[in-house]
Amino acid sequence: MDSNTLFNNIKKKKSFLCVGLDSDIEKIPVALHREKDPVFRFNKEIIDATNKYVVAYKPNIAFYESRGADGWVSLENTVEYIRSQYPEIFLIADAKRGDIGNTSKMYAKTFFEHLDFDAITVAPYMGEDSVSPFLEYPDKWVILLALTSNSGANDFQFSVDREDKTRLFEKVLQRSSGWGTENNMMYVVGATKAEMLRDIRKIIPEHFLLVPGIGSQGGSLEDVAEYGINNKCGLIVNSSRGIIFADNSGKFAQIAGEKAKTIALEMSTLLFQNRLL
Amino acid sequence: MDSNTLFNNIKKKKSFLCVGLDSDIEKIPVALHREKDPVFRFNKEIIDATNKYVVAYKPNIAFYESRGADGWVSLENTVEYIRSQYPEIFLIADAKRGDIGNTSKMYAKTFFEHLDFDAITVAPYMGEDSVSPFLEYPDKWVILLALTSNSGANDFQFSVDREDKTRLFEKVLQRSSGWGTENNMMYVVGATKAEMLRDIRKIIPEHFLLVPGIGSQGGSLEDVAEYGINNKCGLIVNSSRGIIFADNSGKFAQIAGEKAKTIALEMSTLLFQNRLL
Repeated sequence: MDSNTLFNNIKKKKSFLCVGLDSDIEKIPVALHREKDPVFRFNKEIIDATNKYVVAYKPNIAFYESRGADGWVSLENTVEYIRSQYPEIFLIADAKRGDIGNTSKMYAKTFFEHLDFDAITVAPYMGEDSVSPFLEYPDKWVILLALTSNSGANDFQFSVDREDKTRLFEKVLQRSSGWGTENNMMYVVGATKAEMLRDIRKIIPEHFLLVPGIGSQGGSLEDVAEYGINNKCGLIVNSSRGIIFADNSGKFAQIAGEKAKTIALEMSTLLFQNRLL
Repeated sequence: MDSNTLFNNIKKKKSFLCVGLDSDIEKIPVALHREKDPVFRFNKEIIDATNKYVVAYKPNIAFYESRGADGWVSLENTVEYIRSQYPEIFLIADAKRGDIGNTSKMYAKTFFEHLDFDAITVAPYMGEDSVSPFLEYPDKWVILLALTSNSGANDFQFSVDREDKTRLFEKVLQRSSGWGTENNMMYVVGATKAEMLRDIRKIIPEHFLLVPGIGSQGGSLEDVAEYGINNKCGLIVNSSRGIIFADNSGKFAQIAGEKAKTIALEMSTLLFQNRLL
């Protein structure tokens, strides 16, 4: 999928919402535990109830990996279900991987061959040869961490370089934007730091950004749009717990659908105000 | 396991060798493909042939994950085998994980509860709250990336901070060394940058270091020991492909054992020269 297709999907859905499938088996409704694969069943119901309002799903790999081989089966089932039922969806593995070349190559194989994800989140610390193996796959994307939504972002990401006066997250953007193109690289920028999007857009005006941190983490969608939107929208905004765990009863999927719809409506207004619809 | 126990194991084995189980199914001897779990069978034979010469094994999670649920079974079998047969071994998950708090907590659960690893490698980019969930487990270790062995290390890790004049890898060492202790934190420092160990030892004289990059990547064991050894040895030096894929015939395990023995002999000389034996 290239950036034009993604933008077309955004216009079609009138939404740039991504739902994070942080599907913790200990938080899903107990009634589902009777199912053969409770986490997949939970995901399936969430997906069926929310897909009209979303352009992307983002399984958080930690929540599958923590259940070992069983968790991987839930993940495989989820990816296959989305691929077969909702082929227009952009599918992100939130994995934060990154290692020396021969190892990143294996991670790319995992998420782009064994599992048919469109994109994977990658940590930048180890530099270009830890990222480039993911970029060798046509139509697949790297989503590189730039400025994250958590408090620990302040530990290293704002360190100012003595020579070029850039903060580390800016250096990551500047240097890495040459490793790929606007059609195979995006960046993670947390909604909790929305005002930074102005500076970020000076460095990468065209790239798509994956923005976590609205909902449970407290970021504002309006601020994100004000500072981050570009002429192809250029934003995929994620909400996880605020949607999938909004309700814990037999109506969990319906409530998740309503939460997603509410956010999508706000997004359609923002798209309209920015003359993208 | 605390650092004294680890040092005692090093003295007992006269070795500070770690064997990296980067057990790529496409590189193991074809004869093993008849087995029910070929990768576990490969690991078992490598472990039986090398354990006398090593203090640690380090499965590289990418090579298991790339096979999905099957790969996780191979990993589970490998961990259980080492735990039951060679309980003194220090077991490292080379996973390079790191995410916001609630997600790092799930990764910690994966590698410290679901799988009984002693340690996990973690990327520092997201800061303290991405690392601290791993440190909540007694007797378990974080091995934080500081200065990696790959060419991409030059992209960001040497960026000098305008205010405190530290390079990023030094800032990672300085700031993070307060997050844990010498009994639950180690650092990755690549053997390909051994001369940097002098500067690193000024910042963290007591911590153990996990040193990849000898063998296939070209680093020198003698240089690593010269600049990095401390009064508890303070080094675990890894070799992966140079040992496990040294031979591809029916004698692969025997040859791996001989390779490990050769390195361990060199290590015992270095320990003796440094009056640690």
